[in-house]
Amino acid sequence: KINGERLWDSLMEMAKIGPGIAGGNNRQTLTDADAEGRALFQKWCEAAGCTMGLDQMGNMFARREGEDPDALPVYVGSHLDTQPTGGKYDGVLGVLGGLELIRTLNDLNIRTKHPIVVTNWTNEEGTRFAPAMLSSGVFAGMHTQDWAYAREDAEGKTFGDELERIGWKGEEEVGARKMHAFFELHIEQGPILETEGKQIGVVTHGQGLSWTQVTVIGKDSHTGSTPMPMRKNAGLGMARILEKVEEIAWSHAPHAVGAAGHIDVYPNSRNVIPGKAVFTVDFRSPEPAVIKDMEERLAVAAREICDDMGLEVELEKVGGFDPVTFDPTCVQAVRSAAERLGYSHMDLVSGAGHDACWINRMAPTAMVMCPCVGGLSHNEAEEISPEWAAAGTDVLLHAVVETAGI
Amino acid sequence: KINGERLWDSLMEMAKIGPGIAGGNNRQTLTDADAEGRALFQKWCEAAGCTMGLDQMGNMFARREGEDPDALPVYVGSHLDTQPTGGKYDGVLGVLGGLELIRTLNDLNIRTKHPIVVTNWTNEEGTRFAPAMLSSGVFAGMHTQDWAYAREDAEGKTFGDELERIGWKGEEEVGARKMHAFFELHIEQGPILETEGKQIGVVTHGQGLSWTQVTVIGKDSHTGSTPMPMRKNAGLGMARILEKVEEIAWSHAPHAVGAAGHIDVYPNSRNVIPGKAVFTVDFRSPEPAVIKDMEERLAVAAREICDDMGLEVELEKVGGFDPVTFDPTCVQAVRSAAERLGYSHMDLVSGAGHDACWINRMAPTAMVMCPCVGGLSHNEAEEISPEWAAAGTDVLLHAVVETAGI
Ligand SMILES: NC(=O)NCCC(=O)O
Ligand SMILES: NC(=O)NCCC(=O)O
Repeated sequence: KINGERLWDSLMEMAKIGPGIAGGNNRQTLTDADAEGRALFQKWCEAAGCTMGLDQMGNMFARREGEDPDALPVYVGSHLDTQPTGGKYDGVLGVLGGLELIRTLNDLNIRTKHPIVVTNWTNEEGTRFAPAMLSSGVFAGMHTQDWAYAREDAEGKTFGDELERIGWKGEEEVGARKMHAFFELHIEQGPILETEGKQIGVVTHGQGLSWTQVTVIGKDSHTGSTPMPMRKNAGLGMARILEKVEEIAWSHAPHAVGAAGHIDVYPNSRNVIPGKAVFTVDFRSPEPAVIKDMEERLAVAAREICDDMGLEVELEKVGGFDPVTFDPTCVQAVRSAAERLGYSHMDLVSGAGHDACWINRMAPTAMVMCPCVGGLSHNEAEEISPEWAAAGTDVLLHAVVETAGI
Repeated sequence: KINGERLWDSLMEMAKIGPGIAGGNNRQTLTDADAEGRALFQKWCEAAGCTMGLDQMGNMFARREGEDPDALPVYVGSHLDTQPTGGKYDGVLGVLGGLELIRTLNDLNIRTKHPIVVTNWTNEEGTRFAPAMLSSGVFAGMHTQDWAYAREDAEGKTFGDELERIGWKGEEEVGARKMHAFFELHIEQGPILETEGKQIGVVTHGQGLSWTQVTVIGKDSHTGSTPMPMRKNAGLGMARILEKVEEIAWSHAPHAVGAAGHIDVYPNSRNVIPGKAVFTVDFRSPEPAVIKDMEERLAVAAREICDDMGLEVELEKVGGFDPVTFDPTCVQAVRSAAERLGYSHMDLVSGAGHDACWINRMAPTAMVMCPCVGGLSHNEAEEISPEWAAAGTDVLLHAVVETAGI
């Protein structure tokens, strides 16, 4: 078993970097805080005897040598970046859980056959630069590196420039590494494990996602002196589309969800009717046909609503991935580890997207999940117990050791 | 008659300061661009033989002496600040039209009995610091100066600090001046004059306004892993309230308008269900009872919608003024000036708020309006013709000279 106290201490130590305003974290990707978090992780990895690799997307790879240095490594890891008002565990647990696994093997003087590599994937959250899981996506060949470098944040800064600025752009070609397997430990971010009273989620599938950025164009004009019939209120058009998003998602319940988290109106002045509204609709489902249906109905509804109101509308797909089926052998390694360790467990479909969803396309992959309080995540109040963190990391350790061989 | 070419040149010269992104202006109040615009105006006024006064709210008063220096001055003017994506004429025409009037009197060697003062009122737009017409409001005793100084922009900077920073905080006590009369020339910002083919609007009334800032509180959580029934989507609550705002305004049409120009959601991340939405509802009507009814129905609807959705809601009135009836004598001076000059004219109710609406509470006041193309304002594409500008300024000149006496 791993050292739960050491793991928890490391989690709390990392959480001091990029503190939020309400007890959580704001350590968004490619900020100074991100750089600081990376440096701390590197220091810890080197102290644990690992060598650090860094690729051109800023993905970090801390390697513990195996008995057979030529065997393909077993990879673990997740991400250290957070939402602007994010929690202390989302992503971080998977990275520091990987580090704890290495520290435990060191303590026990166990050398696995295959090397083990702990990864920190850059920009998993996708909040500063869309889409989410950007760098694992480039690694898996889903996006080109040039396209990724050109992603812009709200201030127009590019991913490429910011990666260079914080000093974490490596030399290594992205995606050149071959993996024996990949395991990601993550908090559930939903309520199922807690509700069902299970310690471990054995993730068999991940639901798919579609992000559509909707731009409604009206005409900015004076809120006081523009008569009602002459208005082209892009904000009102947006409101009506948001109502439709809710309706469309519910029509597929419980097999789909939908919402818009990103909303900007222009010029955003109290006495100017919005001439433009830009927002991103997030639809998810484990079923590809449902995602397709939701996308299509959104497009039809948005056009109908805007036509009716004399508004223009543009829809652009800015992110997405298909539902994922994880590798049965890796999934079974997780399930038997939980079984062997005597932790209560259940099979789970991941509601969120994870780097594992992309890596699954190029290597046998599975995920371990632990509960989080009230199913709450992407909120500074996100919470887990030290016991949950330790149990998840124990399962990770055992699944990895079984896969890496001793 | 005034010199239309000189007036137009000055308008174009001023428009070079704080250029917008689409041919208009972004010269928001208390920015560096505002300071630059003020300096240019002061230079022009001094060149025209005026002395400049400056009060503690940054209101500027360019005085041309009268035959009787003890007679109360006739004031004219408007504002030089603009919306973030504003036009070149909204406010500016009234200030530079006042300057042109002085230049014309100089050319003609006419000295009026009463002195004439051209005013630039600080923060008329209310876009950076709510409410609109802030400094004429303090001048008229509607707000205290301390309260005004404490107004914050979106970055948390205060009006008082920013006024000091740009170097335009004067010594003079605010509101100490007494006025013989006040005339404000302004573009209509609505479609009526153009539609009716009239050159001059004789403004008899101004409609009232109510700004309610609505804060909807939900719970930020993950867009993917939070099941639909567990969501507290503040953005969706806002969308439903915005739909109600539209419905409430239409129920009083054509005697009311309503919209929300300011909308912010938090944390504004694509994969976070908004935990908070803040927006400002702008309701207007010439009838106080209608405004009251709209405010009340908004409050009821917002509470109902949010209760239904498990959201919290707070409503705060952040701006407002009652409908205004301008001074019959001053209004008649405008009407007869238009008549005398042979300009087509009609009586008008102002749809927008103006500094004249506050000054009307302490001095006999009236407004002159000229058309604007397509009724469009609070838009960089705001346009007027040099002839319209000249006609409005001619009427201003004649109304002022009649009132100031020669
Ligand atoms: N795990 C997680 O929150 N990932 C962000 C990508 C997503 O929105 O699902
Ligand atoms: N004239 C003008 O646009 N004033 C701003 C205040 C208002 O919103 O009416």
